[in-house]
Amino acid sequence: MIINIPENSDFSIHNLPFGIFSTEDRSPRAGIAVGEHILDLAAVAELDVFEFNTAVLEKDTLNDFIALGKSITKKVRIDIQHWLKDEGSILAGKPELFVLQSEAQMHMPVSIGDYTDFYSSIEHATNVGMMFRDPENALLPNWKHIPVGYHGRASSIILSGEPIHRPKGQVLPKDASTPVFQASARLDFELEMAFITGKNTALGETVSTAEAEDYIFGMVLFNDWSARDIQKWEYVPLGPFLAKNFASSISPWIVTMEALEPFRVAGPAQEPKVQSYLEFDGNKNYDINLEVALQPDGAEEQIICNSNYKYMYWNMAQQLAHHTVNGCNINVGDLYGSGTISGKDENSYGSMLELAWMGTKPLQMKDGTERKFVQDGDTVIMCGHATKDGVRVGFGEVSTKVLPAK
Amino acid sequence: MIINIPENSDFSIHNLPFGIFSTEDRSPRAGIAVGEHILDLAAVAELDVFEFNTAVLEKDTLNDFIALGKSITKKVRIDIQHWLKDEGSILAGKPELFVLQSEAQMHMPVSIGDYTDFYSSIEHATNVGMMFRDPENALLPNWKHIPVGYHGRASSIILSGEPIHRPKGQVLPKDASTPVFQASARLDFELEMAFITGKNTALGETVSTAEAEDYIFGMVLFNDWSARDIQKWEYVPLGPFLAKNFASSISPWIVTMEALEPFRVAGPAQEPKVQSYLEFDGNKNYDINLEVALQPDGAEEQIICNSNYKYMYWNMAQQLAHHTVNGCNINVGDLYGSGTISGKDENSYGSMLELAWMGTKPLQMKDGTERKFVQDGDTVIMCGHATKDGVRVGFGEVSTKVLPAK
Repeated sequence: MIINIPENSDFSIHNLPFGIFSTEDRSPRAGIAVGEHILDLAAVAELDVFEFNTAVLEKDTLNDFIALGKSITKKVRIDIQHWLKDEGSILAGKPELFVLQSEAQMHMPVSIGDYTDFYSSIEHATNVGMMFRDPENALLPNWKHIPVGYHGRASSIILSGEPIHRPKGQVLPKDASTPVFQASARLDFELEMAFITGKNTALGETVSTAEAEDYIFGMVLFNDWSARDIQKWEYVPLGPFLAKNFASSISPWIVTMEALEPFRVAGPAQEPKVQSYLEFDGNKNYDINLEVALQPDGAEEQIICNSNYKYMYWNMAQQLAHHTVNGCNINVGDLYGSGTISGKDENSYGSMLELAWMGTKPLQMKDGTERKFVQDGDTVIMCGHATKDGVRVGFGEVSTKVLPAK
Repeated sequence: MIINIPENSDFSIHNLPFGIFSTEDRSPRAGIAVGEHILDLAAVAELDVFEFNTAVLEKDTLNDFIALGKSITKKVRIDIQHWLKDEGSILAGKPELFVLQSEAQMHMPVSIGDYTDFYSSIEHATNVGMMFRDPENALLPNWKHIPVGYHGRASSIILSGEPIHRPKGQVLPKDASTPVFQASARLDFELEMAFITGKNTALGETVSTAEAEDYIFGMVLFNDWSARDIQKWEYVPLGPFLAKNFASSISPWIVTMEALEPFRVAGPAQEPKVQSYLEFDGNKNYDINLEVALQPDGAEEQIICNSNYKYMYWNMAQQLAHHTVNGCNINVGDLYGSGTISGKDENSYGSMLELAWMGTKPLQMKDGTERKFVQDGDTVIMCGHATKDGVRVGFGEVSTKVLPAK
């Protein structure tokens, strides 16, 4: 191996995710995470090894690189994999190609044109329905027919590491008929994953479930910050708005679908039968372990949720087929959140709302405090990785600290 | 006057809206509409009359020009106004600076980062509430407290003149419990106006109602196409998605807020009192006459709606203050729809849903047909203009033909 990769690294030789990084002497550019290092792709390009216009590797987003298409992006990843393994390859004896991640600054990997959030975990939708509507009819009538989704705010998607301020907004106090304006008292995270499209469609075109994978470049971890009290007051009838658009956080490395290929699994049975445009062949779920830790200010971090992306009722191919079945066009760099990923067990719920069951079961923290929702000073850290037959492919983390309202 | 401007032109000397146009021998660039002509701003720049980097006038969107700020964009408009009036000005004797609109192709005036749609007409919200919910409690409890809004799809916003295909999707037949997949049978327009922001904020910043006008560059006509049957089945609980994101159409010329200044009027009284962050001083509504015509394929066009932008309950300053009160960041080129603009009279309703009252009062067309919703082959044409003391400032039109489902 050209460079040392620690055992159990998320960024194993099997992963090789793409991101945008800079250092004091390098402007933002494309890189690949390898163990604790970043391979500088713009510098590799100077070795004249790539057969495409490598100016795309010097951009401050991956959009133009991704837009070259999978035939090129797949080959870059496979070539790098071979070269990293081969002690005599073109990468050998060139330590200047590698930068320590600890010495680099990460940037948003893509410029996101449109951002859509789905609501595809049956456990999450059921929990929310039980809490807010009717425990006997927790799932709404359309839920098993439609991968329910809505449009979110692209401008406020931020990178792991950037802190957020607690949002202010209108909330309706209990038993009141007039709202008050205040800092949200029910700030929550949502454990999600998100995929990024790598290919455009024209307005009017559709993407079938069979074609969908051609359009999906890769995935990131996604924390869809939510203010539950603002949401409750505003969301009828047109959906969440200020309760969500103050921030959503992503992890910096885009793990490609090729790297995730070994971790395909079958999803839950879908009953009743879905519309034919939502039918699909093969295993479309992915076995990705997900974990949420909460770190109170100055205290130790503590795992509060263990979930898995494989629990999703609706898969990405169905989400994309549904999104485009009316002719809605998609672009390179668009981002699609899964919706909160909850499992069946109480410790697998992907939000504070569910973990503390609307405040009725506060989480006990090791520092003696308890949590019904996220407090000022808390840092929420989400991790994700897949393992199988000794192969590990991980996402690193998305970590966000909550600062007091401005 | 340097160039003839027909009396009653939307594009009078008092207007001078900005757009992006091309001709066979000119690539897309910035222009100003003057009567039946377009003044080529990139060509004017070659006369060395502007004191900013005029490369922004040769771009295929106005974003970089708008981002220069109002001190510059206002001066360009005022200078052009003076030069057009002055027979001895720098524009005199240079017919090559002008292009006939009929010989030019218009393009999207801005690259839209995020698109938000509000729901700010009390008459529209009341009509919809009466039809779909409870006639006695038509307005939802939050409506008079919040300028209700939601995020829409930016990628599918298209220019006037581009036809759309009727969307397909899931709809729930009457009395059925299982949806069917079909072409929408309830395709509708929504008469809206939209404003475009000309200034960024950072995440966490707010824009007060007093500051809002600094952030608004100008306005366009906006047709927010809607599939009512798809909407009805999908929109609970997260809002409209496929019912809206197949297309929204805008008019090509951005009329500046400076041009609209003479047409300010007071808006409706707001009772109950709004939260303090939504309070404002001065007249924030605009008296802009709006008209919708429907043209069946091969038949004459027929006016089916006369409305006015002045009816809006919530004004743009309130919309923007609300949108950013939680710290949501905005960018140059973002677009904000007003929501359907209905008035009190039955002929002022801004959608087919309301005009034909859910199909119970079909519109009689001059060709003998009737309309409950928009049919294949129909063209929907929206116009808007303001007049006062002999001054006319108009928007031209947004015209879209509906083609059969693919």
